[in-house]
Amino acid sequence: MRYPDTAQPVFTLTSGPVNAYPEVLNALGRTVLYDYDPAFQIFYEKVVHKAQKAMRLSNRPVILQGEPVLGLEAAAASLITPQDTVLNLASGVYGKGFGYWAKRYSPNLLEIETAYNEAIDPQAVRDMLARHPEISVVSVCHHDTPSGTINPIDEIGAVVAAHGAYLIVDAVSSFGGMETHPEACFADIYITGPNKCLGAPPGLTMAGISERAWAKMKANLAAPRASMLSILDWESAWSRTEPFPFTPSVAEMNGLDRALDLYLDEGPETVWARHALTARAMRAGVQAMGLELWAASEAIASPTTTAVRTPAGVDEGALRREARARYGVVFSSGRGETLGKLTRIGHMGPTAQPIYAIAALAALGGAMNAFGVRADTAAAVAAAMNEIDADA
Amino acid sequence: MRYPDTAQPVFTLTSGPVNAYPEVLNALGRTVLYDYDPAFQIFYEKVVHKAQKAMRLSNRPVILQGEPVLGLEAAAASLITPQDTVLNLASGVYGKGFGYWAKRYSPNLLEIETAYNEAIDPQAVRDMLARHPEISVVSVCHHDTPSGTINPIDEIGAVVAAHGAYLIVDAVSSFGGMETHPEACFADIYITGPNKCLGAPPGLTMAGISERAWAKMKANLAAPRASMLSILDWESAWSRTEPFPFTPSVAEMNGLDRALDLYLDEGPETVWARHALTARAMRAGVQAMGLELWAASEAIASPTTTAVRTPAGVDEGALRREARARYGVVFSSGRGETLGKLTRIGHMGPTAQPIYAIAALAALGGAMNAFGVRADTAAAVAAAMNEIDADA
Amino acid sequence: MRYPDTAQPVFTLTSGPVNAYPEVLNALGRTVLYDYDPAFQIFYEKVVHKAQKAMRLSNRPVILQGEPVLGLEAAAASLITPQDTVLNLASGVYGKGFGYWAKRYSPNLLEIETAYNEAIDPQAVRDMLARHPEISVVSVCHHDTPSGTINPIDEIGAVVAAHGAYLIVDAVSSFGGMETHPEACFADIYITGPNKCLGAPPGLTMAGISERAWAKMKANLAAPRASMLSILDWESAWSRTEPFPFTPSVAEMNGLDRALDLYLDEGPETVWARHALTARAMRAGVQAMGLELWAASEAIASPTTTAVRTPAGVDEGALRREARARYGVVFSSGRGETLGKLTRIGHMGPTAQPIYAIAALAALGGAMNAFGVRADTAAAVAAAMNEIDADA
Amino acid sequence: MRYPDTAQPVFTLTSGPVNAYPEVLNALGRTVLYDYDPAFQIFYEKVVHKAQKAMRLSNRPVILQGEPVLGLEAAAASLITPQDTVLNLASGVYGKGFGYWAKRYSPNLLEIETAYNEAIDPQAVRDMLARHPEISVVSVCHHDTPSGTINPIDEIGAVVAAHGAYLIVDAVSSFGGMETHPEACFADIYITGPNKCLGAPPGLTMAGISERAWAKMKANLAAPRASMLSILDWESAWSRTEPFPFTPSVAEMNGLDRALDLYLDEGPETVWARHALTARAMRAGVQAMGLELWAASEAIASPTTTAVRTPAGVDEGALRREARARYGVVFSSGRGETLGKLTRIGHMGPTAQPIYAIAALAALGGAMNAFGVRADTAAAVAAAMNEIDADA
Repeated sequence: MRYPDTAQPVFTLTSGPVNAYPEVLNALGRTVLYDYDPAFQIFYEKVVHKAQKAMRLSNRPVILQGEPVLGLEAAAASLITPQDTVLNLASGVYGKGFGYWAKRYSPNLLEIETAYNEAIDPQAVRDMLARHPEISVVSVCHHDTPSGTINPIDEIGAVVAAHGAYLIVDAVSSFGGMETHPEACFADIYITGPNKCLGAPPGLTMAGISERAWAKMKANLAAPRASMLSILDWESAWSRTEPFPFTPSVAEMNGLDRALDLYLDEGPETVWARHALTARAMRAGVQAMGLELWAASEAIASPTTTAVRTPAGVDEGALRREARARYGVVFSSGRGETLGKLTRIGHMGPTAQPIYAIAALAALGGAMNAFGVRADTAAAVAAAMNEIDADA
Repeated sequence: MRYPDTAQPVFTLTSGPVNAYPEVLNALGRTVLYDYDPAFQIFYEKVVHKAQKAMRLSNRPVILQGEPVLGLEAAAASLITPQDTVLNLASGVYGKGFGYWAKRYSPNLLEIETAYNEAIDPQAVRDMLARHPEISVVSVCHHDTPSGTINPIDEIGAVVAAHGAYLIVDAVSSFGGMETHPEACFADIYITGPNKCLGAPPGLTMAGISERAWAKMKANLAAPRASMLSILDWESAWSRTEPFPFTPSVAEMNGLDRALDLYLDEGPETVWARHALTARAMRAGVQAMGLELWAASEAIASPTTTAVRTPAGVDEGALRREARARYGVVFSSGRGETLGKLTRIGHMGPTAQPIYAIAALAALGGAMNAFGVRADTAAAVAAAMNEIDADA
Repeated sequence: MRYPDTAQPVFTLTSGPVNAYPEVLNALGRTVLYDYDPAFQIFYEKVVHKAQKAMRLSNRPVILQGEPVLGLEAAAASLITPQDTVLNLASGVYGKGFGYWAKRYSPNLLEIETAYNEAIDPQAVRDMLARHPEISVVSVCHHDTPSGTINPIDEIGAVVAAHGAYLIVDAVSSFGGMETHPEACFADIYITGPNKCLGAPPGLTMAGISERAWAKMKANLAAPRASMLSILDWESAWSRTEPFPFTPSVAEMNGLDRALDLYLDEGPETVWARHALTARAMRAGVQAMGLELWAASEAIASPTTTAVRTPAGVDEGALRREARARYGVVFSSGRGETLGKLTRIGHMGPTAQPIYAIAALAALGGAMNAFGVRADTAAAVAAAMNEIDADA
Repeated sequence: MRYPDTAQPVFTLTSGPVNAYPEVLNALGRTVLYDYDPAFQIFYEKVVHKAQKAMRLSNRPVILQGEPVLGLEAAAASLITPQDTVLNLASGVYGKGFGYWAKRYSPNLLEIETAYNEAIDPQAVRDMLARHPEISVVSVCHHDTPSGTINPIDEIGAVVAAHGAYLIVDAVSSFGGMETHPEACFADIYITGPNKCLGAPPGLTMAGISERAWAKMKANLAAPRASMLSILDWESAWSRTEPFPFTPSVAEMNGLDRALDLYLDEGPETVWARHALTARAMRAGVQAMGLELWAASEAIASPTTTAVRTPAGVDEGALRREARARYGVVFSSGRGETLGKLTRIGHMGPTAQPIYAIAALAALGGAMNAFGVRADTAAAVAAAMNEIDADA
């Protein structure tokens, strides 16, 4: 049997969107309230409060009404001025991509770029800042999803904080799946969203904003206002007594509310642990199968996505299509520079469960075999089971 | 008994968001697919095709990933250049508001402004265009929701088309509730969304774009690209073989899909008829009650929202709070200039059913009485029933 | 416009099933767990505990896996033996109907029967018990739904308790909508369900069983065992450590769980108050309209259903069809003896909100007028509003 | 990490209830209509028609308002009279169990009983019927779920038909997962339900009834009438113009409607094929692991459930608890005679997908290892993948 393209797959094991938790899917169907209804305004304030708790922030986060790409563009547009010198840290396609937005708002862009299977070295950041005392904004992607690699954000943040520059962090696909919080990495703007490790659908941004970032944005006359790209417009929207700049996405808020409940009720540490164990099982399996991890070292491999290097001679797109057609399992491709060079298996939110690693390894191995790669699926499963059992 | 602010109201009879159709609420809970999954790409193409059918377009509409305020801002940003002279037609707060966005992109702004309870006269547009042959873009709001009034968009469109200017139409709260389509009004950019008369939650824009508007936007080097504000980025996203610029709001697309099915299956003419009848019943009731419609004439009163002038001496906010507390019925306030001067009763999508007009009139009359206004609720209901029965 | 039979109505204002609360509808879509899964067994025990709390029982209720007609038949089959003399109290079709089941299990059936628009007089029960000391089981319907009338169950229960007979109470359509609890009326078997005033769908029975009823059923060798009709099979099913006799209706349990939360969280007294007020508004309106209540006196009219006598010459079925076709509002007919003689407007669970009375009165009046009955809808609405406003 | 009992498992791979298809879960949340509403009556008739199509019946099936155990008890109660001689075929716990119900309604019970890992031999039935021409009713369980074994129902049915006896078939856990239909096996009463291979929740029975079975039941004065156990009461309930004997389970009907759509739209043959392939993969894996199938031969092993013999010395309950705690995977135990002797892995409806076999084998193997059984999980996965790949 083969799964047709028109049919839904059995498992979506991608780096996002992943399917939402069943409880979140149900919550999306709650009654749509009028945004000015007091019951909705009270609800909205509560959701912001839950997001604050989940993000371990000392002030209120902002919820923007678009998936996190909006938050990232809005951060660049709001915080960066032509007077700024921006240091962009690029260890992958997403990190690199932020530089283009930064450049849009300031001509003064410096960059540290690594190979896209490596991570930024905090020492390199320290050196660059020492050489360029004029650097006023640093931007970094925590989990560069198209590479499945993690930058040492807390260490980098400490270096940036010591220098005094503002720090913009893209933690879209790491937050909720591992220990990372805005204040732990001294972020001034920390962008994440419900649609990765929190297991809700795409459509919102959660942004942690430091007090000094609020001040800098307010002082920036070019910062978007009366705009979809505005962060400033939403400053007081959390309050049940204040209006919204425009109608928020009520259904997405309903989903986020439930996703935050699930995260806080299960316990963040427990959630991170199952992401981490699933990732360890995946990596053990991939290597036992005779395949190669994309990440230069396991230490920088993401706990929320495992990127596997495409064996020579294999058409990566065909490989994923075969995994889907044969087993009903969907993986992610690379993006941009990494497209065709790796396959990504996501383990985020509801799929961050070790048993999914077994299914993923079987589907990956089977698809490899279909293309003539000798991947030992049995050994992969045995190795993954060892990791899981070691933690039982 | 009184309904507390923390409890959901019984009826949300606002000018949007209104509650979604139950079928749409259910559809929001469908499995969240990976945006690159072929099943999702096929689905997305189908939804765009349904939107095209509903909008009676000869080319494909664009679905933007934010509620229609995004579409309106994006239209201004994409179509208007500093070389354009824009004529903005303002018969209410939303029409007026578009002028601010137009001004952001061109210094050359002309305006025809009416009192906010009147409609734009096509002859005035014709005259203005004759006086200002340099006008290259005209913008108009079809249903200026904060006033509950309708502009004669098809006539205006014909005038603009004869002149040769580009036309931007805000049909957010009219489309789906009355006969209006992009090509019938010669619109170059026609913005609407699922969250008003289609009875889906807020979070998406549906935009009809003429071929010459595509050409003008592409020629505009300042038009947003690689941005949340971009329309151009989405040009080929409808196709199952093309990537999305960023992750679309999967759940909202699921809801829109169902909302379009409901609209097309019930039959647009049938849907418009129940909006119109509900509005007639409302207006008959309001006047029989001794209250005054905001609209200068019934001819320009919206079939999707009925705006009622606030009697002298009444605190409009308190009035709506009382209707909610006493009867569990929520109405909309005015906005900006009309805030405090009128109350809006929406009849959109699932609430565009004549029996809701009865409930609305009772709640409105009761709240009026509570503030010492002698509103004859019984007469209002009798008059509304007459309208309904006349159509039975 | 007319609503076609194939389309869903706008308002279902029946005496049940009524639409469920939106939150309950969502809960029905929760993951279906295996009935032997510990998470399900723990959940089931919790739901039984919530039902116990809602029913204010000192022991655990039983949840049977069929709508309450199952509970009533099971009660007769389990409790009544040929040695029993049963006194059945019949003030309506449902009370009368129970007698047929009682007769199936014992030849010794006595009955007190009133006109079907009156209530059982506790003194008549006292007299009958005095004349027939052999009476060992008394059965009574609290709210005889086909009549919309209430029997004084607590007083009757006290009389029966003084006599020492077992009491079977049908409180299907009263529990949750007014103050009534098994122990307050000294019931030995008290049958109700989620599908009336609790606002959940039909499919389960909630049964309060006294300790002495358990003993009597266990002593009855003819009581159903290993049967769908068994109550005994379910005695220990509440416990997370005990098996179920057969697979319970998982989705219905999920719905009941949420319905009980809603009931307990809103506060039973608050829920009863809105049922009562809706009923008062309905009755005031019906009478102001010039129509006649079916109930001989308002004192015995149900707070959960208002029965209106059909005017002479009117085809009651046609009347309801007209209300549905013209206004999208569905009412209930009578049943059996009362069929054709009355129309019932339910106000249960989510529709037990005063504003629905306004809609109901308008639809009822309008349909009457369509058949030539001079019903003054305006006066009806005015009278109903007076009731509502008097309580504001 | 270990999954606590209070948390939902990751995969419910049981022999039912299994989780429902996501589309069915959504459908459960549809508006609850009044059972006498014409829209509901039209809907109900349509669902019965879909069930007829799925069951490939030439007359209308009956839908009973309780899970299939109700249908089986009702079949015995309605069809069997004291004048009948019943031959009950028992190849497992469920088949054996039906004999107790048969005995309740006729003292004349004969039985053919096999070991509970074997199947009924049609020749043995032929011989018994030859020896006992008085046999008038034969009963058989198609898939005896507690054993995971299949009886050759079509062959048995042909033998019984030749004899002229009535045939009662329990096809609860086979229908929808393999080729089996009432008329193909000459069944007079054929009981199944939505909660196994159709992937809907438990709560309804689907019963195919031959014309001569209707006649025999009607002639049986002791057949339940005015009862939850009645089949006769429902004879004309399918018709949009006829009343229901009591309120049907509206939400369950909504779920069944969607489940039937899914089954018919995917194509029965396609659905059966994925059940069969999943089962083949399971069996290959189990044997490669060094474990033993419960079924005496693969030929009689069910395509919807794989039963695995518990290795000597292993506590089967502890084994399943460990699989759940360690991997979040839930299996079924045996029942009655088979309890403790085997573990059942269901592959029904949404879990009848080969990739689930991989997860099941890993979890089963891992749990075995945890109890000191040397089960080669890697070999199991390899063998299962071979089966899957052979069909790709």
